[in-house]
Amino acid sequence: MENSQPHVVIIGGGFGGISAARALYGASVKVTLIDKRNFHLFQPLLYQVATGLLCPSEITTPLRHILKDQQNTTVLLGEVANIDPDRKMVILNDGEIGYDILIVAAGMVNHYYGHDEWERHAPGLKTVEDTARIRQRIFSAFEIAERESDPKKRKQWLTFVVVGSGATGVELSGMIAEIAMNTLKGEFRSIRPEESQILLIDAAQYILPAYPKKLSQITEEALNAHGIRTFTGTKVVDIDEQGVTVERTGGREHIPARTVIWSSGVMASPLGKILAQNTHARTDKTGRIIVNQDLTIPGHPEIFVIGDMAHYEGVDGKPLPGLAPVATQQGRYVARVIKRRLSGSSRVKAFSYFDKGTMAVIGRHSAVADIGQWHFGGRFAWFLWLFIHLILLVKFENRIIVLIRWAFQYFSYSRGARNLNLRGTLQLPISRDNKGL
Amino acid sequence: MENSQPHVVIIGGGFGGISAARALYGASVKVTLIDKRNFHLFQPLLYQVATGLLCPSEITTPLRHILKDQQNTTVLLGEVANIDPDRKMVILNDGEIGYDILIVAAGMVNHYYGHDEWERHAPGLKTVEDTARIRQRIFSAFEIAERESDPKKRKQWLTFVVVGSGATGVELSGMIAEIAMNTLKGEFRSIRPEESQILLIDAAQYILPAYPKKLSQITEEALNAHGIRTFTGTKVVDIDEQGVTVERTGGREHIPARTVIWSSGVMASPLGKILAQNTHARTDKTGRIIVNQDLTIPGHPEIFVIGDMAHYEGVDGKPLPGLAPVATQQGRYVARVIKRRLSGSSRVKAFSYFDKGTMAVIGRHSAVADIGQWHFGGRFAWFLWLFIHLILLVKFENRIIVLIRWAFQYFSYSRGARNLNLRGTLQLPISRDNKGL
Repeated sequence: MENSQPHVVIIGGGFGGISAARALYGASVKVTLIDKRNFHLFQPLLYQVATGLLCPSEITTPLRHILKDQQNTTVLLGEVANIDPDRKMVILNDGEIGYDILIVAAGMVNHYYGHDEWERHAPGLKTVEDTARIRQRIFSAFEIAERESDPKKRKQWLTFVVVGSGATGVELSGMIAEIAMNTLKGEFRSIRPEESQILLIDAAQYILPAYPKKLSQITEEALNAHGIRTFTGTKVVDIDEQGVTVERTGGREHIPARTVIWSSGVMASPLGKILAQNTHARTDKTGRIIVNQDLTIPGHPEIFVIGDMAHYEGVDGKPLPGLAPVATQQGRYVARVIKRRLSGSSRVKAFSYFDKGTMAVIGRHSAVADIGQWHFGGRFAWFLWLFIHLILLVKFENRIIVLIRWAFQYFSYSRGARNLNLRGTLQLPISRDNKGL
Repeated sequence: MENSQPHVVIIGGGFGGISAARALYGASVKVTLIDKRNFHLFQPLLYQVATGLLCPSEITTPLRHILKDQQNTTVLLGEVANIDPDRKMVILNDGEIGYDILIVAAGMVNHYYGHDEWERHAPGLKTVEDTARIRQRIFSAFEIAERESDPKKRKQWLTFVVVGSGATGVELSGMIAEIAMNTLKGEFRSIRPEESQILLIDAAQYILPAYPKKLSQITEEALNAHGIRTFTGTKVVDIDEQGVTVERTGGREHIPARTVIWSSGVMASPLGKILAQNTHARTDKTGRIIVNQDLTIPGHPEIFVIGDMAHYEGVDGKPLPGLAPVATQQGRYVARVIKRRLSGSSRVKAFSYFDKGTMAVIGRHSAVADIGQWHFGGRFAWFLWLFIHLILLVKFENRIIVLIRWAFQYFSYSRGARNLNLRGTLQLPISRDNKGL
């Protein structure tokens, strides 16, 4: 009986994969969700973990826990190495698994435009592991500056550069400013964290290039008011341990900085390339697979690609952005298509994205919102952001705890999650003698 | 002016070091607190982090934050390599710092009685880094068992051994039982986590050997009722990847188990040995330094040793146990001695420990308490434990969040902090083909 049911394999437990799995609840299919991590990650709040405000478990939920009551669904912890569309097999590092229908939702990875060597010096923010690296860098920088006697080197340690001014870049630079100006104020004896410099760099002519121009201006003014220096029309041409080299109308310039964070480029998971080769699908320049109107791969009605990995043109002719709501709606849509097929109907309407709007937080009391015809910034946008994100957090427990953390941080500016261990990656400079200490 | 003040250097930001530093608030001394981590750790709740109930930042507080308002106090992130009592210098890995008065409070490390090779297979629980390893092992074991088709190997993955039945061992085994019996129930498709075996092994004749015998019996009965098998009078003679070899009256036995946790032995930080050599101080068999009645090292009135590193005999002639209240009271005592010396008085009363009692949690609604003449177990002891630990948590923010997490976990059995990443240390077995999955 059970073996006669079609087997739906979902690769990836992000917003796309989870929403597809959930929407297949009770359907006459056997579902296997494969992920190399055992948890779903609420990516929109990654930047708050990277800056020590939340701890990782507050934005993650075990996949097994989410899908516990779906008896037709199995969670498989495994890493996908390849996909064989002829044999309809997903090849894992340690085995293989057959499918009747495949949903690929493996997301994006950081992309350095051919400069992978920059990654060491400028970590990006896509995973929980990334948050630990970035947090370590930010808080270590102040520790090292505290023990550095050379004013020039000290300034270099207190200079923070964020490359890329999308929502994540804006949010990260806002958080770093708050750490420097408020959280760490008064905690050091040799340095004044408030004297840190926070720079936000983008090659585009405007901050938040994907947003309406009015909001870009509001955001830039708000960032500047929070002490962040914005450099638009500025291209990064090199990144090394000592800082960032930029190019703009005035020429080249080297910015000495020991902490650089990359939020400029992402590309489809490497699995996208493998899948495209094996199915002869076309990809765009960030490696996303160009999909049909029903999110399948041309010539492969049994393979769906959803979320950040899919290139799907919206009504304006531009590909849909890599946002959680897009992935979630696509996951639900694909489940609907599968259920219609099971009931014998093969005709489905094309996927269409319902855009509820996008928002970015600049800092305390300050955010911008792009909701349909409404483009606004300021305090109301900030409260709206807070409210929406609380609703969105998948798990009830996390919601309450995050709310409380936010409330405490609002009043106290404190950040609990900033543990450092000298035995780890932190390298202090060769220090001064007794007198200096 | 400031340079004429005596310089008090404190090594270690645990309960002893922090209480000494705080008690020197406002005193006419310059204080430097050295730690290789930037946070104070609330060790009594480490086991809750190791079992995914709390996240690390909920039991840690940044040292700079604690001592922020003490203008006479500097926090120095550094690792101590040596102490030179002749030159009165603390030698760091990257510099050195002079002292007039030294307070050494560097705590304990795990100790394997000459079998350091066991450490790989049986991590101990003393640091935040240890919690990540143990948590990874516990939750990975269920994942691996889920994909293991050989019933014998599967049983081995579902067998958890805790070596050492002190408070930490009892608490850890109770938590693992709750994870298996409640938290993970229904989340797997091939295994039933409830079928896990949890074994608590101790060479002593009773569980909780440091507690009154009546409490040992209560605890053993409660553990057994929670599904934990207790083996007393059982000596561990070998630990490897495949399990534990034990020796007891009946002879030798090998217990196949893939998850073994060590909570049997601790010894003084390696700094103790160095300090003892350099000051010709005597140490006991666990490397603790035998101190004078005023907690100084014989012949060195300027060097105090406090907390877990100090061997100080209580009124009963036995050395004081390695507990947070002992360290805290010793820290305050030493600050008092220093202040008396500053005021010209050299006579001080010997240190005496005021024992408020000790407690251990066995599981839900179940704990034991040893408070003066009162020895009791059960539900009231459990509520008392909860209440006391909430009061004890240093930081207001953490207290509230921990309370809420406990409340949620109480009703839902859920544990948020159980992230795994296949790219990390987790190794899944070579798995079955499609059919098995």
